[in-house]
Amino acid sequence: MNAIVKGRFSGVGTGPGDPELLTLKAVRALQEADVVAFFCKKGGNGNARAIVDAHLRPGTIEMPLVYPVTVETHKDEAAYQGPIADFFDRSAEAIASYLDEGRNVAVLSEGDPLFYGSYMHMHVRLAHLYPTEVVAGITAMSGCWSMTGFPLVQGDDILSILPGTLPEDTLTRRLEDTEGAVIMKVGRNLPKIRRALQAAGKLSEALYVERGTMLNGHAQRLEERDESPAPYFSLVLVPGWKTRP
Amino acid sequence: MNAIVKGRFSGVGTGPGDPELLTLKAVRALQEADVVAFFCKKGGNGNARAIVDAHLRPGTIEMPLVYPVTVETHKDEAAYQGPIADFFDRSAEAIASYLDEGRNVAVLSEGDPLFYGSYMHMHVRLAHLYPTEVVAGITAMSGCWSMTGFPLVQGDDILSILPGTLPEDTLTRRLEDTEGAVIMKVGRNLPKIRRALQAAGKLSEALYVERGTMLNGHAQRLEERDESPAPYFSLVLVPGWKTRP
Ligand SMILES: C[S@@+](CC[C@H](N)C(=O)[O-])C[C@H]1O[C@@H](n2cnc3c(N)ncnc32)[C@H](O)[C@@H]1O
Ligand SMILES: C[S@@+](CC[C@H](N)C(=O)[O-])C[C@H]1O[C@@H](n2cnc3c(N)ncnc32)[C@H](O)[C@@H]1O
Repeated sequence: MNAIVKGRFSGVGTGPGDPELLTLKAVRALQEADVVAFFCKKGGNGNARAIVDAHLRPGTIEMPLVYPVTVETHKDEAAYQGPIADFFDRSAEAIASYLDEGRNVAVLSEGDPLFYGSYMHMHVRLAHLYPTEVVAGITAMSGCWSMTGFPLVQGDDILSILPGTLPEDTLTRRLEDTEGAVIMKVGRNLPKIRRALQAAGKLSEALYVERGTMLNGHAQRLEERDESPAPYFSLVLVPGWKTRP
Repeated sequence: MNAIVKGRFSGVGTGPGDPELLTLKAVRALQEADVVAFFCKKGGNGNARAIVDAHLRPGTIEMPLVYPVTVETHKDEAAYQGPIADFFDRSAEAIASYLDEGRNVAVLSEGDPLFYGSYMHMHVRLAHLYPTEVVAGITAMSGCWSMTGFPLVQGDDILSILPGTLPEDTLTRRLEDTEGAVIMKVGRNLPKIRRALQAAGKLSEALYVERGTMLNGHAQRLEERDESPAPYFSLVLVPGWKTRP
């Protein structure tokens, strides 16, 4: 039996939506991949797969990793932790079996792989076992403030990245006690986020961005947005930079 | 006299150092630019200009914007504010005169243009006067945590971006009260940053990254780094993600 050289494992950031926001390094990693894996919900291949469409070699094996429960389930619930851990274990095993055959596997990640991305769950399971490369991606927040030309922080400003899933009083306290802020994971947390910004005296400055850098993306002042639930791909920007020379 | 169509103004993120971390969009913006401007210190063209070297068209006009004082001067000092505001005003006027002639001007920015970048000072002076596009870039922090495979935040974690120029007690309090943290602008603030991390009980977890994604970049545990001053291109990463399914 011949020893097989293990394949290379990579986490590839796809950026937030605009395919032009892929890096040259991501394009190369995709072209060197034998297998391209991506997390997605049942019934669709997801955003990351769509972003890289033009760059896969013919013959690339596609490996959808389909979430077992909806992303709407609250991550703290004990009922969620068991199945999701199993799912991550099984996904990592499936990737490992390709790597053991000597095939290069790229796991796609919307935005940046190590910034609140599902890729992280594969990384902690596999990076110590296989030659691994993480290809940084444009984060959703960078895409959103660039698209809208909305400068966030400069000089000695603090920037706080806040998941919208946090309790309202935590959000309020954090928003009072920072210069710039980005609120991720808006979705059905929108009414709570609005109340927290109001309590912190920052609602009028806040910008709401939906599907940033995607084809039908748009931005508006949060004050002017209605109360209908926000889509998954949305975030809120709070500017910090006040003293401009 | 014929009316001249104004040129396009763009802020182009170059990423943190590795030229492969340029986006496809940045490459296109560079190829469409008639003039490429970049901030730099006297006696060198700076990092951003070096990163884009392979992508400028022959004949592109280069426009170094040379800082009038060293970056070591503390930005709060009144003596700094006057000259630096003048310098930004003059730089914006020089860019505007090209735009008025109908030439496209790209201003380079290390990392992401609207994230603590000097480009922001041009943006607030020109974006309302000319057709403007901001091309998001890979931030230094994304480059550093990707290069080192160091996952920072997941789930409900808060991430705090802290300039190392802040007072020691502010740094300590912020580090105690967050999950993940990135400390930018390390340089001669290194001993203070180390004390703040020690006081917050997080020194042993902290990773120091120097010249991240550049040719001779490297990372080490902050505890193991000596007390010699850090270079300009360095930052500290503090991991947040603890509960892993
Ligand atoms: C699990 S996090 C992943 C973040 C991603 N890894 C990054 O680097 O930005 C998902 C959240 O990112 C934000 N997001 C991702 N893409 C977005 C887009 N195109 N526009 C607005 N928000 C987006 C939303 O707040 C969403 O809830
Ligand atoms: C004025 S800020 C500019 C940040 C940049 N616009 C970005 O998007 O990351 C400069 C600081 O960024 C950090 N930095 C920039 N490039 C870096 C690199 N290659 N490695 C480590 N730190 C870097 C350092 O902390 C430096 O003091």
